[in-house]
Amino acid sequence: MGIVLNMDGKPSSAPSIDALVRLTAGGMDKVNQLILARVGSDVMLIPEIARHLINSGGKRLRPMLTLATAELCGYSGEGDAKLAASVEFMHTATLLHDDVVDGSEMRRGRLAARMLWGNEASVLVGDFLLGQAFKMMVEVGSLQALDVLSTAAAVIAEGEVMQLAAAKNTETTEDEYLAVIRAKTAALFAAACEVGPIIAGQGKAEQAACRSYGANLGIAFQLIDDALDYGGTSAKLGKNVGDDFREGKITLPVVLSFRRGSDAERAFWKKTMEAGNGSDAELEHAISIMRRHRAIEDTVERARHYGAMAVDALALFPDGPMKSAMLEAVDFCISRAY
Amino acid sequence: MGIVLNMDGKPSSAPSIDALVRLTAGGMDKVNQLILARVGSDVMLIPEIARHLINSGGKRLRPMLTLATAELCGYSGEGDAKLAASVEFMHTATLLHDDVVDGSEMRRGRLAARMLWGNEASVLVGDFLLGQAFKMMVEVGSLQALDVLSTAAAVIAEGEVMQLAAAKNTETTEDEYLAVIRAKTAALFAAACEVGPIIAGQGKAEQAACRSYGANLGIAFQLIDDALDYGGTSAKLGKNVGDDFREGKITLPVVLSFRRGSDAERAFWKKTMEAGNGSDAELEHAISIMRRHRAIEDTVERARHYGAMAVDALALFPDGPMKSAMLEAVDFCISRAY
Repeated sequence: MGIVLNMDGKPSSAPSIDALVRLTAGGMDKVNQLILARVGSDVMLIPEIARHLINSGGKRLRPMLTLATAELCGYSGEGDAKLAASVEFMHTATLLHDDVVDGSEMRRGRLAARMLWGNEASVLVGDFLLGQAFKMMVEVGSLQALDVLSTAAAVIAEGEVMQLAAAKNTETTEDEYLAVIRAKTAALFAAACEVGPIIAGQGKAEQAACRSYGANLGIAFQLIDDALDYGGTSAKLGKNVGDDFREGKITLPVVLSFRRGSDAERAFWKKTMEAGNGSDAELEHAISIMRRHRAIEDTVERARHYGAMAVDALALFPDGPMKSAMLEAVDFCISRAY
Repeated sequence: MGIVLNMDGKPSSAPSIDALVRLTAGGMDKVNQLILARVGSDVMLIPEIARHLINSGGKRLRPMLTLATAELCGYSGEGDAKLAASVEFMHTATLLHDDVVDGSEMRRGRLAARMLWGNEASVLVGDFLLGQAFKMMVEVGSLQALDVLSTAAAVIAEGEVMQLAAAKNTETTEDEYLAVIRAKTAALFAAACEVGPIIAGQGKAEQAACRSYGANLGIAFQLIDDALDYGGTSAKLGKNVGDDFREGKITLPVVLSFRRGSDAERAFWKKTMEAGNGSDAELEHAISIMRRHRAIEDTVERARHYGAMAVDALALFPDGPMKSAMLEAVDFCISRAY
């Protein structure tokens, strides 16, 4: 099979998220309108901060997944957009609080909200968005969807505390790390996907399938993010490379390198992770240790494993454009690492 | 009518909250069990911090009001305890986030959680409690109660941001200040009281009456707290006197004193509120200015006005022990100032 190069020089057969974006475009217009309407407040600081985050060019993958699973399950009402907007608000609230907790200076290549408006406003506007998220969910009127999303909210916060308690601990095991990202990242992906079949009135099997798709995609997504923070598998480094390293965040590439490394390497990890603020030279050294132990490649391998589970989870749905788009989205998430 | 002194030397006819405590004791046992059960987590930091707050001897007035209004409206199910525990979790989450935002060192006479575990954990455990609160509400299954409580969550956060934006502004008007406490304090009192008639299946009139009782009691409660922070109307000063002053918090006694004061006094307020960390001598001076302008007495008068509205709101309910206890609770809240 020949590979045709498109204008960007990428093979056109490379997995892409374009089909998912296209198939959910109509719903995402509604979601974006809802988002703008619901951050409105007479307290000017609220729309100001919310817009900063909302316009910062996130991919909005999570709300897209809610629309996609609802459509996959034959839903035709108006509730999916509200649930999707709620999911995005929950995500945005988490980002605001996360940045405060991590003391992050940047978010998606721009100054973090807390750097512009302070920690105080970031905490409170996060709370506001969470409140608005719950209001929108209540409007949809599905107690089952409310149950799924409120449980996710508690699990996410629990995961954040877990991570805080384990912070800078280079002896974190792979299982412990997985438990953190299951809670921190995968729980919202899973909930975003599970509410689709729920409002579509589908049964337990479809709910479990979509939930499993979301959870495993979420883990894969996070692992690839972890790998990308150390440049992925390619030699050329992206713009956000080294953020995790400088913040002393323990991610899977570090966990694997630490376990596979020599005493000297373990001492290096201990020192740089605990102190944070690693230099460029230290980052380069970190990446060279990772390459030696294939830590980045194996992180991507792990992601591939979870991606495969996400793909299998959708087997019970009949083939169709939305299913294809969702399957391709999994490949796309993983292909980012190359 | 003769006044009999009890052992503490207080007149036994003084308004008390004892009747409300006694009439809700059975329900509060369930609420306390729920609270302990729902802060459980494998992440040890969560129950640790939650217990610190929960055992710190708050009066639990808000959950008591949920039980009281449910009982007043003839409710006999199990949902009231869960809604009451949710209300307390929402309140506790707000306290955790508030302390971070205000940089408070103390809470109810003990070290604030953030002083013991850090701002990070306070933010995240607050989020966890909010998530658990929503989970419990969802279990009760009343969409109307969910609507009331999720709206309150958004309004509370909005009020906090409003206060942050107005912080240290001594030119705050009485109306602006009232808007802040309506959102920050009264909204949760109102919601706590409104969900009682809702789960009891009462109509709009009863819901509005209980909501009005709660909202006005909440305003009165907050104004008395404000007055107490400057010693109330008595000459002897309680243990938490001056906290607001040292944090530079603009409350009604300051608003009234600033408006009624001389240029020199206004300069004093500007200086001490903006700088914060006022000395004992400055606090004494602040109180003497307040006394000169009757700012504390008039704050209590304002509270009395809202208290009267709370009392009138209950007029449509037939007389009975719970109604009497709720009316007495209003008088009790105000009598704290003396």
